[in-house]
Amino acid sequence: PVNFLEVEGNQGLVAAVFGILFSSLCMLVLDKDPLPLIASSSQHNRGNYWKIMALLYYPAFYYPLIACAMSRHQAGYFIGCLLSWCHCVVCIWQKVDCPQSPKIYRYYSLLSDVPLILCLVVLSIWYPVLLVNSFTQEKAAAKEVMCCSFFRIHLGMALLKGSWGKPLCPHYVPFLCGSGKVSVLLRAQKYLRSYIYTPQEGACPPLHMAFSTHRAVEKQVALLLLVAFIPNIQIVRAGMTKEITVLLVQFGVIPSENAGVTAVPVCYLTVCYICSLVLSCLLTFSMLLRSLVVHRANLKALYRGAVLDVFCHARVLRPSQQALVCWMSFASFQTAFTCFGLLIQQVIFFICTVAFTFLVVIPLHTNWNLPLPCLLPLARPFWLTLVLAVVVQNLLAHFYFLEKRQLQKELTNRRALCVVSYLLFPMNVLVGVLAAGWRMVISALYNVVHFCQLDISLLNRGPVLLPGYRTYCHYLKLEVSQSHPVMKAFCCLLLQLPSPEGQPGLKPTDVEEGEILLKGLMRASKSKQTRTRWWLAYTLLNNPSLLAYRKAVLSDPTANGTQPCSARP
Amino acid sequence: PVNFLEVEGNQGLVAAVFGILFSSLCMLVLDKDPLPLIASSSQHNRGNYWKIMALLYYPAFYYPLIACAMSRHQAGYFIGCLLSWCHCVVCIWQKVDCPQSPKIYRYYSLLSDVPLILCLVVLSIWYPVLLVNSFTQEKAAAKEVMCCSFFRIHLGMALLKGSWGKPLCPHYVPFLCGSGKVSVLLRAQKYLRSYIYTPQEGACPPLHMAFSTHRAVEKQVALLLLVAFIPNIQIVRAGMTKEITVLLVQFGVIPSENAGVTAVPVCYLTVCYICSLVLSCLLTFSMLLRSLVVHRANLKALYRGAVLDVFCHARVLRPSQQALVCWMSFASFQTAFTCFGLLIQQVIFFICTVAFTFLVVIPLHTNWNLPLPCLLPLARPFWLTLVLAVVVQNLLAHFYFLEKRQLQKELTNRRALCVVSYLLFPMNVLVGVLAAGWRMVISALYNVVHFCQLDISLLNRGPVLLPGYRTYCHYLKLEVSQSHPVMKAFCCLLLQLPSPEGQPGLKPTDVEEGEILLKGLMRASKSKQTRTRWWLAYTLLNNPSLLAYRKAVLSDPTANGTQPCSARP
Repeated sequence: PVNFLEVEGNQGLVAAVFGILFSSLCMLVLDKDPLPLIASSSQHNRGNYWKIMALLYYPAFYYPLIACAMSRHQAGYFIGCLLSWCHCVVCIWQKVDCPQSPKIYRYYSLLSDVPLILCLVVLSIWYPVLLVNSFTQEKAAAKEVMCCSFFRIHLGMALLKGSWGKPLCPHYVPFLCGSGKVSVLLRAQKYLRSYIYTPQEGACPPLHMAFSTHRAVEKQVALLLLVAFIPNIQIVRAGMTKEITVLLVQFGVIPSENAGVTAVPVCYLTVCYICSLVLSCLLTFSMLLRSLVVHRANLKALYRGAVLDVFCHARVLRPSQQALVCWMSFASFQTAFTCFGLLIQQVIFFICTVAFTFLVVIPLHTNWNLPLPCLLPLARPFWLTLVLAVVVQNLLAHFYFLEKRQLQKELTNRRALCVVSYLLFPMNVLVGVLAAGWRMVISALYNVVHFCQLDISLLNRGPVLLPGYRTYCHYLKLEVSQSHPVMKAFCCLLLQLPSPEGQPGLKPTDVEEGEILLKGLMRASKSKQTRTRWWLAYTLLNNPSLLAYRKAVLSDPTANGTQPCSARP
Repeated sequence: PVNFLEVEGNQGLVAAVFGILFSSLCMLVLDKDPLPLIASSSQHNRGNYWKIMALLYYPAFYYPLIACAMSRHQAGYFIGCLLSWCHCVVCIWQKVDCPQSPKIYRYYSLLSDVPLILCLVVLSIWYPVLLVNSFTQEKAAAKEVMCCSFFRIHLGMALLKGSWGKPLCPHYVPFLCGSGKVSVLLRAQKYLRSYIYTPQEGACPPLHMAFSTHRAVEKQVALLLLVAFIPNIQIVRAGMTKEITVLLVQFGVIPSENAGVTAVPVCYLTVCYICSLVLSCLLTFSMLLRSLVVHRANLKALYRGAVLDVFCHARVLRPSQQALVCWMSFASFQTAFTCFGLLIQQVIFFICTVAFTFLVVIPLHTNWNLPLPCLLPLARPFWLTLVLAVVVQNLLAHFYFLEKRQLQKELTNRRALCVVSYLLFPMNVLVGVLAAGWRMVISALYNVVHFCQLDISLLNRGPVLLPGYRTYCHYLKLEVSQSHPVMKAFCCLLLQLPSPEGQPGLKPTDVEEGEILLKGLMRASKSKQTRTRWWLAYTLLNNPSLLAYRKAVLSDPTANGTQPCSARP
């Protein structure tokens, strides 16, 4: 949630503040004493109320850190510097003073504060840089002009030429469903590329907001990971005494004569935990990258006016109450969904890796008596029979039931086909049970892996709005309606008009750029009404004195800005 | 898997035989002695081989029962009568002789044979009816002619007039995504109707095959249910001794002074089991009905040539090896998936109902100390806070951030919006966690409930072919390519041509009907090539002597029959 019209906001700074907020939220949920100065109350009820207070206290407490940057003034930057340094020093000093705590794990309190301190360090470096930049005023102004002109020329042109290409529909995977003549390698390459976010020169700035939000979320995920990781490992290490070994002996994994060797399973469990954690983090990260790609594609498509390519039915891209609420809560929903998804993935992958280790790796490694390889040979003729049944059906279909006739294959021996399909019915039921298991595993894995992607609905009925997907749709709607690049370019031009107070006005090069943009628009727009509107805007831009004779509507950048949306290329 | 071109096969009979086969498969998997005369071998390995043998033995053993009906001759019907009576009497006598068995439950053997005996009774009633019908030859012939003429007129016309309507796309739910002005009641009605299979006069016969398959599957599900139900209840009754009560006391559900009262939880568990079983059966049944509706809609769409409405990309509707294998295994896959889905549903619903009972119903009923109502008041201010946060956001969005301007709502107070969304970030994260849980529950429930529907892919990426969906697609392809109603009508006409052996030929009314059909076709078909083809077919039909001068292609009903597919209305 950054200001829509801010062209080149300090996204990293905002992301750092949100990171601080999230890590304090994590601590708040896990700790008993949510507020710093109030001692832990013995009553559980009182503690609950303090927690609710803390939910409001922390955002207010860290608000100055973000407000200083929003003022865009040297004094603000200076106060920001002081504040961030204060916070940082206090936090580090507190931790150095008493690094240990009587909680879950000795260094738990220290480690859980690491992400908070990292974010504060980022802030305390960022503010001085901003302050120094604001003193060298020219540089900043030049940057602003460059950014503005970038908007005007690059974005407007790219948009109007339609060079941004087709949208990347989330429901379409070229690799898996295309049946054309494109080689598999090329399709795989294309599929993989759809998962990797490559910054595009022309499309980056309007995405900075989403990107920063996502980046903040990713950072928060990493923090959560850190917070969750250490205590868990400690618990595993601490709890892995003889009880677990006894349990394993009871399950028949370890023979009782080996019961003394407790170190091996403990070590394996730790490795499993780390592996599953790394795997789930990587998956979540790649899914977030993927959703960035999809988001950029969706934004581009909506900028071009292709609403039906993104949503399944026509929607009005105007702000509404619901859309506004969804926009406000999008960043937090993305955070919550990512955490939840990471947790589920972690649990499932941990169970899977543990099962794999104890059923396959350990037996192979130590020659203990193993449940799985004991079961396999018993069932081997059974598996062979099923494979044989499938092979026989394929062979029969190829050589006996199909006949080539004039380049087309035709069905023959219909009666035999019926008899064979009757006779193989029981075999096929067993094959079907295996297929059903496979279907369940695939769909469950798909849902778990894609859980954190808000931009896809997990149900196969596209239009049904699941909680997360609904929020994303409304967010996208509002984002597009309020930050269209053409509108932004227009606002840039309006802001740089020579104001009556005698401030530095428009330079000749800027006017030329504006003209280039507007002529490009003229060439691209075809409908008469749109052309008339653009001529009017162009006239008003070059003759600001006429503005007084117009209705008040056009002088408002907001009311103006939404007009270019109707100028579809 | 019934013969494609059989117009009015004895579908009920085939379904009964498949039911027998499935119930013997169930017994085979559960029993130790799969084959009737061979005593149980002590070695586990030997028993496995006998089981595999039994997989082939049972279809061959019951094959005469189905083969007698396929011969369509009086002698066949007579032998079928004798066979089915024999089977039925032997089976019933065996069970009356020794109704008890030392297995899971005393009457388990008797109850597991009930579905088998029911199917045999159906068969032993069906065959005599067929035999009597075959003696009254006239009636049968009249029926055949009627059926044929039905095909010619009703189906052909309906198809060509396009009165069959649009296909029911499985990815589209009018109730949940339509944003038009249709009232909610109407949409709900339409949505509910899409779940209820109403037999349509014009579309029933080509669907009989699918219907009978489904009906057989439904019957088999009911059988499975019976087989699974009784022993489970017995186990629950038998196992519900003091151990469970001790467990409940340990979990704090029952206070220890009530530990003597063991009857109540036992009774509750039984009720839960029955409830979940009934619920899952009803759901599976409604899903099967729904998939019948979808299947009929898909068939109609494909008959009209609208391939893209059913599959997401163009497919060639011609038999291939893969399609043939899938067609052979479709019925068994549907059976296996239904069983698997029922099992999963049963487990999940049982867990849910047990949790609901022990957390809500029993505490309310008996005033025991309850985990849930103990937890609720503690967290009540927490829930209230979250609700309050959502309400505040909605109110702010409505009254403060939106402004009505020229009939359209516009955004105002942008800076305040950013600040509010920053301040409410922690609250929204907690709301988001709840939404994430909701999303998980909904998607898991959706997948579990729709598991047995082979005609939808459970992934939201439509084109990706999950195991079950792939089988269905190929099955549909082959079914459409081989049993197009226009082709069937054409085959009827060809079969009724006066043959040179002097058998009773075509009656004048039949010719008229054929002419009506073909004229209807002429009117409907628009392309020149199609019209030429149909004129050719019409000429050849009325002048069979010309057939000798044609290429061999047209005399083959199969090669012919696929041509009408190109005659789209």
